[in-house]
Amino acid sequence: MKHLLSTLDLSRADAIRILDIAEEMAAVGTRQVKKLPALRGRTVVNLFFEDSTRTRISFEAAAKRLSADVINFSAKGSSVSKGESLKDTAQTLQAIGADAVVIRHGASGAPARLAATDWIDAPVVNAGDGTHEHPTQALLDAFTLRTHWSALHGHTSSGSDLAGMRVAIVGDILHSRVARSNLWLLRTLGAEVTMVAPPTLLPHGSNVWPCTISFDLDATLATGVDAVMMLRVQGERMHDSFFPNTREYSRLWGFDDARLAALDATDSGETIIMHPGPMNRGLEISSAAADSPRSTVLAQVANGVAVRMAVLYLLLSGDQPRPAPSDAIRPAGL
Amino acid sequence: MKHLLSTLDLSRADAIRILDIAEEMAAVGTRQVKKLPALRGRTVVNLFFEDSTRTRISFEAAAKRLSADVINFSAKGSSVSKGESLKDTAQTLQAIGADAVVIRHGASGAPARLAATDWIDAPVVNAGDGTHEHPTQALLDAFTLRTHWSALHGHTSSGSDLAGMRVAIVGDILHSRVARSNLWLLRTLGAEVTMVAPPTLLPHGSNVWPCTISFDLDATLATGVDAVMMLRVQGERMHDSFFPNTREYSRLWGFDDARLAALDATDSGETIIMHPGPMNRGLEISSAAADSPRSTVLAQVANGVAVRMAVLYLLLSGDQPRPAPSDAIRPAGL
Amino acid sequence: MKHLLSTLDLSRADAIRILDIAEEMAAVGTRQVKKLPALRGRTVVNLFFEDSTRTRISFEAAAKRLSADVINFSAKGSSVSKGESLKDTAQTLQAIGADAVVIRHGASGAPARLAATDWIDAPVVNAGDGTHEHPTQALLDAFTLRTHWSALHGHTSSGSDLAGMRVAIVGDILHSRVARSNLWLLRTLGAEVTMVAPPTLLPHGSNVWPCTISFDLDATLATGVDAVMMLRVQGERMHDSFFPNTREYSRLWGFDDARLAALDATDSGETIIMHPGPMNRGLEISSAAADSPRSTVLAQVANGVAVRMAVLYLLLSGDQPRPAPSDAIRPAGL
Repeated sequence: MKHLLSTLDLSRADAIRILDIAEEMAAVGTRQVKKLPALRGRTVVNLFFEDSTRTRISFEAAAKRLSADVINFSAKGSSVSKGESLKDTAQTLQAIGADAVVIRHGASGAPARLAATDWIDAPVVNAGDGTHEHPTQALLDAFTLRTHWSALHGHTSSGSDLAGMRVAIVGDILHSRVARSNLWLLRTLGAEVTMVAPPTLLPHGSNVWPCTISFDLDATLATGVDAVMMLRVQGERMHDSFFPNTREYSRLWGFDDARLAALDATDSGETIIMHPGPMNRGLEISSAAADSPRSTVLAQVANGVAVRMAVLYLLLSGDQPRPAPSDAIRPAGL
Repeated sequence: MKHLLSTLDLSRADAIRILDIAEEMAAVGTRQVKKLPALRGRTVVNLFFEDSTRTRISFEAAAKRLSADVINFSAKGSSVSKGESLKDTAQTLQAIGADAVVIRHGASGAPARLAATDWIDAPVVNAGDGTHEHPTQALLDAFTLRTHWSALHGHTSSGSDLAGMRVAIVGDILHSRVARSNLWLLRTLGAEVTMVAPPTLLPHGSNVWPCTISFDLDATLATGVDAVMMLRVQGERMHDSFFPNTREYSRLWGFDDARLAALDATDSGETIIMHPGPMNRGLEISSAAADSPRSTVLAQVANGVAVRMAVLYLLLSGDQPRPAPSDAIRPAGL
Repeated sequence: MKHLLSTLDLSRADAIRILDIAEEMAAVGTRQVKKLPALRGRTVVNLFFEDSTRTRISFEAAAKRLSADVINFSAKGSSVSKGESLKDTAQTLQAIGADAVVIRHGASGAPARLAATDWIDAPVVNAGDGTHEHPTQALLDAFTLRTHWSALHGHTSSGSDLAGMRVAIVGDILHSRVARSNLWLLRTLGAEVTMVAPPTLLPHGSNVWPCTISFDLDATLATGVDAVMMLRVQGERMHDSFFPNTREYSRLWGFDDARLAALDATDSGETIIMHPGPMNRGLEISSAAADSPRSTVLAQVANGVAVRMAVLYLLLSGDQPRPAPSDAIRPAGL
């Protein structure tokens, strides 16, 4: 694996490898092991053409926990805003000595373009591009799902996939890179996916996606799902015409208190409620749902750091023989 | 001590403990000891909802001098500006692995709210909230005062308080969190405080504060004080109606050249002139006063780093037995 | 050398010393030596009154590769924008413990003013001031030129200068601090300089500069030069009246495809094409020229980090005896 650009082209083996390493990484930052020396002397550049503080600090925490140096490059006010091309920006980062570039860009495909050229040798990590993909979000979601699924079945999570798991992804599919990245990865890992959305918030072509399409959240929930993934309503990306009023949206497509009560009446915690954050409480998810024991919202954030550590570690240690997990996780030097 | 939210609830013992540790910390960053390994592997998040470069870089320098990793989170352009609640922001930082959160917020009470809930386990340090408190500013002022007071009396500062010291706090008391934090801490440490302000710049209820209120700066100075603390005129917080024109303000409430000359005629340096910065030279303080040997403006800034090191150190080392000062200050590893 | 403010007052010996050390530094960040411990525990403050992401991250990478702590201070939204003087900002940085201040300022002379006063003890590095100077840019250009020149003549670059080299600097000389800094340094190192510009883009007084002035790029190229340095057209600094339309500019003063073809017909790579970046492709330089084997654009960026490491190293290690290069470059500790 040279870059992490999408989950569409991520093999099952690579996906499971990332999740397995993330599992080891999740032990870092707790107890006595605060950080690893694995990437000491490496420079990770966060190249953000869009604001996204949450994603940026998650990558920053991940890189620092591996002892890398981090340079934040916000495109605002930079030479990019003076008209510099992506090519020149990339080559500049290369020349400055970036060992990895984490890129967030408003244009779908920008990270892939960066990686496909010879502008830069460093591994490229897609931290969200347009409405295209957000692969580390999908990986952290898969990590969260796998933890739940394996606990439910009493097997170890390491090495396992999501075969047989039923996941509903609900809301504004049209504008969601999270939905796309999750769909590809969940299929690769063997889960069954149902996309639930108003017809106006489904993209053209989604009818051939490898998933079930539903326009009725309650009907989907009634069939029994193991996880419900609520998407953020991205007001800033939406045209008014697509969008019902917020009360209507919440009633039809939100995970509200009534749906939580219905779920609580039928199972005892087998179904989890996910959200990539930041949440619009009261819109796509009610506070009771967000804070219920079923909610994995905070586990997802924590898993995000572990997954990003795993990705940076894998991309930056490259073809070198991997140290034994015991070395990697508890080095004498710390 | 679990958090540092205000000086109102800071015990005398804790205050003196912070000042004493700050005294040891003041030796770091100079001579041969550039930094301490005390917080290696810990992550301090600067969560700033208001711009305040001076305070932010002081905390950043303090954390880095203790070998902590620092992540700066400016709320502008973040998911906070997309409507994320303080609760969700806090829980996100917790999940990302923040070991301490330094928060600056425009709303009085926001840090206390953060600390009172179970949103986050990490210690919370108030770096200024609305017109409420700014406890590390008060602590660095107390540190500066104690250094002067003990030198004046020929005793060691460590372990001592400010009993008998007379401090005048002058200017825009109404909008000043610095004035409030100083008042509570100075009283706890035994100093006598006089607040000097135009009637329109005193808050409702200040008549029951444990201090003398004066409307006449010259009269207060004539009674003899050991320190005069000039407050910044915060133009951006003031309604025009409260505010005399600037020349008038300077003549009545500023520490101008005439007052400096009068002071120089009556003592030989026993009275110091303080200012939390940034100064409006020529408004609340003249350049001659700001640059005079009596001015402690720069000592205050330097003491700010030491005090913040002490606070972070105390909060983050928690209940662990504290290492001997000799270990803490001059580790073999450096 | 206490500060680096300009190349006008940089001695030949100091310039060569910086270039020689930069040559050693260029080996850091590659292969097995990722960083040096030379400035561990030192704090470098990037004090940027103007946005300049490229220059800022180059200094940040340089400082971190020497193990220094970096604090970024953007004047926007800081107390500077609340009217704080340069003096008070400088003294604050001093008090906070800055070991070096890298300053970028819109006003010509601001760094020199900082250094000339006793506001701050720390070394000051000019990272660009108004239309005055940008000395590290000139040093990285000289480094790039020297590498080419010595390879061309088959001698080692270390210790050598640019005697006999012919350099053309082309474009908007009027607004360019890069042109000024380069002129002084190139003359000090023995190169011959021709400034090529439209008459309206030459500053008053340039007729007494120690260089040839030309209004005809093709004529200058026909005389044979060893390097052509294309300046960025700084649209944001220019009044419309000075400026021909962009097509006209490109035809007369740009290094376009025709000029590249002409050059390729007459030599086999002896003449290099330089640009400080960010480039306006298609305006002052064509894409073919920018990406040709003659282009040193990316080498310049890479050399920028090495030169800035050398400058920070020299200024911060001060009068201490310099360690043997072998120690400095490959410490056992890494």
